[in-house]
Amino acid sequence: MKGFAMLKIGEVGWIEKDRPKCGPLDAIIRPTALAPCTSDVHTVYEGAVGDRHNMILGHEAVGIVDEVGSMVKDFKPGDEVIVPAITPDWDNEAALRGYSSQTGGALGGWKFSNFKDGVFSDYFHVNMADSNLALKPEGMSLEAAVMIPDMLSTGFMGAENANIEIGASVAVLGIGAVGLCGIAGASLRGAGRIFAVGTRPISVEVAKKYGATDIISYKDGDTAEQILEATDGEGVDAVIVSGGGPNILIDAFKIAKAGSTISNNNYFGSGEGDRDTIPLPREGWAYGMGDKNLITGLCPGGRVRMEQLADIVTYGRMDPELMTTHVFKGFDKVEEGLELMREKPKDLIKPVVLIED
Amino acid sequence: MKGFAMLKIGEVGWIEKDRPKCGPLDAIIRPTALAPCTSDVHTVYEGAVGDRHNMILGHEAVGIVDEVGSMVKDFKPGDEVIVPAITPDWDNEAALRGYSSQTGGALGGWKFSNFKDGVFSDYFHVNMADSNLALKPEGMSLEAAVMIPDMLSTGFMGAENANIEIGASVAVLGIGAVGLCGIAGASLRGAGRIFAVGTRPISVEVAKKYGATDIISYKDGDTAEQILEATDGEGVDAVIVSGGGPNILIDAFKIAKAGSTISNNNYFGSGEGDRDTIPLPREGWAYGMGDKNLITGLCPGGRVRMEQLADIVTYGRMDPELMTTHVFKGFDKVEEGLELMREKPKDLIKPVVLIED
Amino acid sequence: MKGFAMLKIGEVGWIEKDRPKCGPLDAIIRPTALAPCTSDVHTVYEGAVGDRHNMILGHEAVGIVDEVGSMVKDFKPGDEVIVPAITPDWDNEAALRGYSSQTGGALGGWKFSNFKDGVFSDYFHVNMADSNLALKPEGMSLEAAVMIPDMLSTGFMGAENANIEIGASVAVLGIGAVGLCGIAGASLRGAGRIFAVGTRPISVEVAKKYGATDIISYKDGDTAEQILEATDGEGVDAVIVSGGGPNILIDAFKIAKAGSTISNNNYFGSGEGDRDTIPLPREGWAYGMGDKNLITGLCPGGRVRMEQLADIVTYGRMDPELMTTHVFKGFDKVEEGLELMREKPKDLIKPVVLIED
Amino acid sequence: MKGFAMLKIGEVGWIEKDRPKCGPLDAIIRPTALAPCTSDVHTVYEGAVGDRHNMILGHEAVGIVDEVGSMVKDFKPGDEVIVPAITPDWDNEAALRGYSSQTGGALGGWKFSNFKDGVFSDYFHVNMADSNLALKPEGMSLEAAVMIPDMLSTGFMGAENANIEIGASVAVLGIGAVGLCGIAGASLRGAGRIFAVGTRPISVEVAKKYGATDIISYKDGDTAEQILEATDGEGVDAVIVSGGGPNILIDAFKIAKAGSTISNNNYFGSGEGDRDTIPLPREGWAYGMGDKNLITGLCPGGRVRMEQLADIVTYGRMDPELMTTHVFKGFDKVEEGLELMREKPKDLIKPVVLIED
Repeated sequence: MKGFAMLKIGEVGWIEKDRPKCGPLDAIIRPTALAPCTSDVHTVYEGAVGDRHNMILGHEAVGIVDEVGSMVKDFKPGDEVIVPAITPDWDNEAALRGYSSQTGGALGGWKFSNFKDGVFSDYFHVNMADSNLALKPEGMSLEAAVMIPDMLSTGFMGAENANIEIGASVAVLGIGAVGLCGIAGASLRGAGRIFAVGTRPISVEVAKKYGATDIISYKDGDTAEQILEATDGEGVDAVIVSGGGPNILIDAFKIAKAGSTISNNNYFGSGEGDRDTIPLPREGWAYGMGDKNLITGLCPGGRVRMEQLADIVTYGRMDPELMTTHVFKGFDKVEEGLELMREKPKDLIKPVVLIED
Repeated sequence: MKGFAMLKIGEVGWIEKDRPKCGPLDAIIRPTALAPCTSDVHTVYEGAVGDRHNMILGHEAVGIVDEVGSMVKDFKPGDEVIVPAITPDWDNEAALRGYSSQTGGALGGWKFSNFKDGVFSDYFHVNMADSNLALKPEGMSLEAAVMIPDMLSTGFMGAENANIEIGASVAVLGIGAVGLCGIAGASLRGAGRIFAVGTRPISVEVAKKYGATDIISYKDGDTAEQILEATDGEGVDAVIVSGGGPNILIDAFKIAKAGSTISNNNYFGSGEGDRDTIPLPREGWAYGMGDKNLITGLCPGGRVRMEQLADIVTYGRMDPELMTTHVFKGFDKVEEGLELMREKPKDLIKPVVLIED
Repeated sequence: MKGFAMLKIGEVGWIEKDRPKCGPLDAIIRPTALAPCTSDVHTVYEGAVGDRHNMILGHEAVGIVDEVGSMVKDFKPGDEVIVPAITPDWDNEAALRGYSSQTGGALGGWKFSNFKDGVFSDYFHVNMADSNLALKPEGMSLEAAVMIPDMLSTGFMGAENANIEIGASVAVLGIGAVGLCGIAGASLRGAGRIFAVGTRPISVEVAKKYGATDIISYKDGDTAEQILEATDGEGVDAVIVSGGGPNILIDAFKIAKAGSTISNNNYFGSGEGDRDTIPLPREGWAYGMGDKNLITGLCPGGRVRMEQLADIVTYGRMDPELMTTHVFKGFDKVEEGLELMREKPKDLIKPVVLIED
Repeated sequence: MKGFAMLKIGEVGWIEKDRPKCGPLDAIIRPTALAPCTSDVHTVYEGAVGDRHNMILGHEAVGIVDEVGSMVKDFKPGDEVIVPAITPDWDNEAALRGYSSQTGGALGGWKFSNFKDGVFSDYFHVNMADSNLALKPEGMSLEAAVMIPDMLSTGFMGAENANIEIGASVAVLGIGAVGLCGIAGASLRGAGRIFAVGTRPISVEVAKKYGATDIISYKDGDTAEQILEATDGEGVDAVIVSGGGPNILIDAFKIAKAGSTISNNNYFGSGEGDRDTIPLPREGWAYGMGDKNLITGLCPGGRVRMEQLADIVTYGRMDPELMTTHVFKGFDKVEEGLELMREKPKDLIKPVVLIED
């Protein structure tokens, strides 16, 4: 079978591999919709999680079940399924402790294009199918469905981790697709005022539709200062970090009230200097005593999460398609989609590739 | 000064009283908008919290600051303010423990028409003004603002206590004004499917606008069975109890999943029999081992809560005016408003009385 | 093989059955230590969860792995293991939602002597062995180890669910083995003053060793009144219900502060009247508005829980053997042990049966 | 009156000031026991929170009420009281939001020797006396009582913020008095294995008495590596940071499991370089996606906290006197006590100064 792979750090290409084997609890999926992700770019071009050779890329997919293992009870070949980007080992100790995304070691629930071949392939493998697949609701578009595995799950997590109370003020730093879902997530948790920090017009437009009340641009001056000024120097109840370089936490802590949450759903592809560190501001952190909590996480995966997010779409709470600015047809367009994510042209939020036979 | 009072259990009327005295931390308010509440009806006609004599009624008000104590820093005569139904003693031990509505004893934060005269008066007294008043935002209508002190605060609390995850399924039992705010609150916390149990057409219409996806009526059969059937026997992730008699928890536990939350924001005006009890179903509760948690509370009060709820209105997250079906003009119409809450005609959700000079 | 079974409601006896089959993820265990439980008595003599026929009893065991399925990675024949009373299906939706004890339906994680044969048998079956077994630490006595699967896990859960803050006051209603573990659990969570309600001298002695500071006996008057008097009418921050009949919640809510938690780890074997209900007191519950939360749960199971509880014993945080008042030798003594739990003689807390070859 | 003050950064001395005025809600206290604190050293010699001139030092005190304001209800002259290091404005918005230590701005609840004169004085002022004083229980020694205002409150907070589950593994970095209270606090929350990182023999001895199971010394190699090795590379469930320089979080994140909490109760007196930052390790933080949460706070203050901590001492849950290695008699010995905290001789944990007439 054919797959689009990271050949080594900095290089991608099409490769041939054997169809994966299906264990008793597993499933083999044939994708119908795929979406390239910024984290694919981090992985390939920054070598963010280390080197990988001939690793098929991609972790956002909707597909058709092609084969199931002998112990799979709830799915059968032909079912159309949403596949989470994160597919935990639900019987692992980290899952039993409540951290399903970290099963088998740090980021261990993130298997696709990290520890095993990803979804940019004719066929791909899913572990623990009964717990890691979710039926795509009938009538849901592929464009909407393929935003669920990572964009909605990661973006909403940013808001969920931010401990937003009804009426709280929130700032979202970065308005790529994940940041936009952070804004939508903040709305879904009941935020009052929502500051969105970003500039691209196409993203700004969607940010407003997802609930942003104030758009903050670096073109108008220091963004942290603008937010402080707009809040009479008080700052906000919650900050969601969805973009920015290694120094972004300095801004995040600066605008966070004493007594607040900084929720990170950024993938720090690189750090500062030889020691590869991310700086916190001593004063902004109130010398370690400011009741400002830094919460992190990896995209929640698994079946129940996918089903709950599908309900958000089904019941009209949020429209993912506002983000799918580019729709390609044909599996071979995955390459173009990824290149687009790397280049980030002005009119891009998120590309989707529909696989048509 | 004149006030509309509970004379004794079962009897109301207009009385004359002295203008309240203003302590150093307090304020005296002249109301501009008032709303009668079902709990006034419970208090007067059920004697739900015991007898009261010549106690001025009412706890939902917007008004003008008429006088402030010598130690009040943030308010001055002439300020237009939202007054929370619950005005805690923020320096009390229960507040320090995190239970501000229970300061000074059970339900002790509920002072108006419970422990002291209420707001249906020419002037009324507010303790700890700096912590218990909130400026009414300019441009907010009185009809919207007067829904904040109790309806929004209590109704949203029902949703907040229900531990709703993004995409969770919720059932709201009762669609009076508090139940409708429970539905709006469930939407604000990110619920997916929301069942609203009730029948009055005017409420059903607003329920849908606030986010209800399924309307369940007793006219179509047992409401609990309908919800179980609609969820393939699974039940829902959260139940908000906003109405019903002493037996309502039997239904609530029946439709709650094993592993779920039953959030009560109902004021149980009466119980069962001599022992005055509220029954839980042994089987529905899974014999006390079903991971079904029953959470309660009293309307959160205080300044920050009012400010956060005002932001919900200001930023267009929810429109309270959909509930104000009846608007009266003139203080003397308070009597008619209360009578209306008692009778509950078909076209009523919530009456508002605007005080005009 | 031989097992000691519930023949029908009210009747027990020894039966012969086939050795259970071992699926790919499962294990077959040969017990080395067993403990009969009060809930076995509820199940058999009250028919608390309904009728069962020829169901082998028992859910508290330590044993030797006799066989493992082909997909089991972490255990092998000969390993000595602690077996949790609750063995969840960790890939089930309830586990994914965070309620592992409720997998596959209410109380579904409780399989032994509920949905399948229990542990009072020559051999018994454990599902998902890698997630549901824990190695018994070398040097830990069998008497201590066999208290972990249910007594420590259930009793500590009572304290964990009670939201005990450091220095909080707690009342534990009932000082059987589970109640005693509730007291130990309250100490482990940092309680200050701990009231233990009970009378049996042997339990009272252990209650004090586990951290009880005040012993309350019905022989000295109404127990709720005694606790209220001892706390100047304030009541306690948390109540753990570990015993009592259907009316016990009336007392529990009476002594709970406005703003507190009532944590139930009682198995309500019977309720009130035809409707089979458990009464809450309307006034004690503050009419549904007292910020008094009723939290429940079923004994947490699984490997990580067992390992963490084993650490509690290993590091000397709590000594389970203080509870093992009766130690029998020989599998056939299981019958006598269960009869002892039914009779509850004065000198009994918990019997243990050591299986010797 | 006389007080021992910070004259400017780097310089201390005795000064004369007027006795503070007592507002209606306030109290004036005459100290009976004082304790110098490492944070006094940070403040004076590192200028950690900026310059201060002629500011009386000290924030740990027990004393006698000398005067109360006209609105104080619960205290009267002659009462012996424990005074929290942090005395929040309980009517302030940050307190209403649940962050009482941050009232009136970052660290605003910390008034003594930060925003107003401290307790090393003949008399000192306490705001909101009813909410910020607690009666010293009769029979409690002054040496024990004076450990409550900061050492117990800050140290236990470290453990409370660490989300320790019963049986969890914990590492405490630093075994000064606050670190020792972190160990005691971890025991009080139910930790299993507790690693204490430090070397001073006198502290090591107390660490063991407070519950440390493993002592880790830098003299035996890299401390993080030792903890990883002792846990088979897994790390611990919770890390409490109670000491160390600006780089301590690098170690803390390294030994924290994916899915864990790093709880800081360190006062970062200085940071790195011109930007004054504290570095997080990118890899140790799992690139921002490791479900490792960094929680901070400032010592909780107020009356209820003091009462709860006093109960911990009263009921024998923890003995603070194990830490009071040096007891001085006479107010003038405060100077020697502070110098001792600066020098940190081998036999010191915490000095106490008893004021004798």
